[in-house]
Amino acid sequence: MNIITISGSLKATSFNTGLLRSLAQIAPEGIVVSEASIADIPLFNEDLETTGLPPAVATLKQQIADADGVIISTPEYNFSYSGVLKNAIDWASRGPVRPFAEKPVATLSVSPGNFGGIRAQTDLRRLMHSIGAHVLPKPEIAIPQAKLKFDDDRRLTDEATHAMLTAMLEKFGTFIRTHQTQSAE
Amino acid sequence: MNIITISGSLKATSFNTGLLRSLAQIAPEGIVVSEASIADIPLFNEDLETTGLPPAVATLKQQIADADGVIISTPEYNFSYSGVLKNAIDWASRGPVRPFAEKPVATLSVSPGNFGGIRAQTDLRRLMHSIGAHVLPKPEIAIPQAKLKFDDDRRLTDEATHAMLTAMLEKFGTFIRTHQTQSAE
Amino acid sequence: MNIITISGSLKATSFNTGLLRSLAQIAPEGIVVSEASIADIPLFNEDLETTGLPPAVATLKQQIADADGVIISTPEYNFSYSGVLKNAIDWASRGPVRPFAEKPVATLSVSPGNFGGIRAQTDLRRLMHSIGAHVLPKPEIAIPQAKLKFDDDRRLTDEATHAMLTAMLEKFGTFIRTHQTQSAE
Amino acid sequence: MNIITISGSLKATSFNTGLLRSLAQIAPEGIVVSEASIADIPLFNEDLETTGLPPAVATLKQQIADADGVIISTPEYNFSYSGVLKNAIDWASRGPVRPFAEKPVATLSVSPGNFGGIRAQTDLRRLMHSIGAHVLPKPEIAIPQAKLKFDDDRRLTDEATHAMLTAMLEKFGTFIRTHQTQSAE
Repeated sequence: MNIITISGSLKATSFNTGLLRSLAQIAPEGIVVSEASIADIPLFNEDLETTGLPPAVATLKQQIADADGVIISTPEYNFSYSGVLKNAIDWASRGPVRPFAEKPVATLSVSPGNFGGIRAQTDLRRLMHSIGAHVLPKPEIAIPQAKLKFDDDRRLTDEATHAMLTAMLEKFGTFIRTHQTQSAE
Repeated sequence: MNIITISGSLKATSFNTGLLRSLAQIAPEGIVVSEASIADIPLFNEDLETTGLPPAVATLKQQIADADGVIISTPEYNFSYSGVLKNAIDWASRGPVRPFAEKPVATLSVSPGNFGGIRAQTDLRRLMHSIGAHVLPKPEIAIPQAKLKFDDDRRLTDEATHAMLTAMLEKFGTFIRTHQTQSAE
Repeated sequence: MNIITISGSLKATSFNTGLLRSLAQIAPEGIVVSEASIADIPLFNEDLETTGLPPAVATLKQQIADADGVIISTPEYNFSYSGVLKNAIDWASRGPVRPFAEKPVATLSVSPGNFGGIRAQTDLRRLMHSIGAHVLPKPEIAIPQAKLKFDDDRRLTDEATHAMLTAMLEKFGTFIRTHQTQSAE
Repeated sequence: MNIITISGSLKATSFNTGLLRSLAQIAPEGIVVSEASIADIPLFNEDLETTGLPPAVATLKQQIADADGVIISTPEYNFSYSGVLKNAIDWASRGPVRPFAEKPVATLSVSPGNFGGIRAQTDLRRLMHSIGAHVLPKPEIAIPQAKLKFDDDRRLTDEATHAMLTAMLEKFGTFIRTHQTQSAE
């Protein structure tokens, strides 16, 4: 099973990116977790669509299409997801090929503050629903107080969070298989 | 009175950009409406902040700071504002100087569809509130069926819409003066 | 196939209630559409839960549990769904038995204004997702200008709307069957 | 200065109600904080409006109109405010007299969970903006882990929270005076 991750932050020392990298370590046998990048995706402009999809967009859309599932983690800016993430989703949700439709998606968020980016994640779920993805309903993991839970290289060190993520990956695996069975009918 | 406009779309033939340009024609004496551009603003990355604000961001922040009011018009992608617009607001809302705080803001949206981008505009108002702007509550103008109301050069041709915008500009002028009096106390 | 409807308005001459009643006429053979009522559901109070579920709540929860699918139509008050509807959903989503979990749900909205209650419906979809329902993604039907489309007895008279609802019911039937197959695995 | 409070929960042992009662103790000299009740407000029904406003609604609207400011605290059900609260606001926001327009409002939330009801409070702020209230932007107080911060009689015992509320009341007092000066112009 092949899962890709998308981080809503481009910062080198992002907690969200660190969290998603930790998933690759945590993944049980049979699940491969790899990173997709949105760093080179240009600002969305419909005029660019007509002259040919930018390569970074084409790559992202193909990665999503090829994946069995997608895990997205977003920082919270101004009570919502990052504009950078919304911009990438805007690109990926358009055109004749729409790889998020019917795609199993799990959401995460992490922040240095007390609320773990939960408002950003709630908006992200709404966004994913609006483009026809299947969003894993539970567990809902928003990680507050990130500075206490990651080391300076943004590796997850908190055991309780580690256990929650392990449980989430397991549930997400089942969720993916259920939806694959369904489409195979 | 000096008002700047921000379009959430970068497309050359954007209805939202066309709508904002029409405002410059409609503006009553004493109100100057000019365009700010977000086309050159890079994807937000906190690492860029520490090495010095990108010029397009610095310019936008200064334009907002200098303006008596800001009018923003957004297209709707996936039931919300454009990622491009959110990205620009993310930049402008950070750092020691936060020009949207206490700034009078009016919102608009236009779309070729039936709902005029009203969901995008509702999210945009929430976003503006979250960064401490004063949002003009009424009138609330979301323009559906854009193709019937603009010519091929995206100039507004619909008289009813023209009248609504004129009324909005007048109200916004009063709204700006009220908030200026308040801060002068 | 047994579908129940819930109207977010209690007004005798509600367009939303009228719309849902029209569905019973429109339903193809094999689909029975009947009304559930939320008129007698008290204001939510956790203290009432501990002394025994109010009869109207128990009835509603049973109707949802027994139904193959639920169709909800909501008016828009203050840019969102009615408090009356949220109150009923708050009751129905609590306790050991949660009938909305995994339940196929379709949403509608109708209003006398220009936007057809689309913001209320968008919030309603978010609400349904949050309690684990399967929400029919498309078609998304929000009916504006209700006065032109219903007669004085709130019977739907508009043919284009009639055709859209027929298509929606057909899609919803397929959607329900897909999710039933899935749970039977 | 006369401030009324509205709790979005009807439960006798509600943390939100307890929080608002604590404000009466905390209020500095010159600010009187008293409770308004929404327990007897019926489910909204436009038909009831035409036969005369229900007494509990008329009382609430008068209390809001007479108050210099309103503080609302809401529990979170299904990621949003309570239906009970939305129902009361739906009533209060309609008709020829709309007491929330231009009214200074502060929002709070408290929950036994980790996020303090922040999503409910965010939706509440959006709701208040939509009816033209002036919402205190900062501080934004959402109190998680309520069981550790209140005693069995729902009296606030946590000193850090006490200090935050004191600061909020002070800011809210200034906010109210600013808006009164403005309307007196």
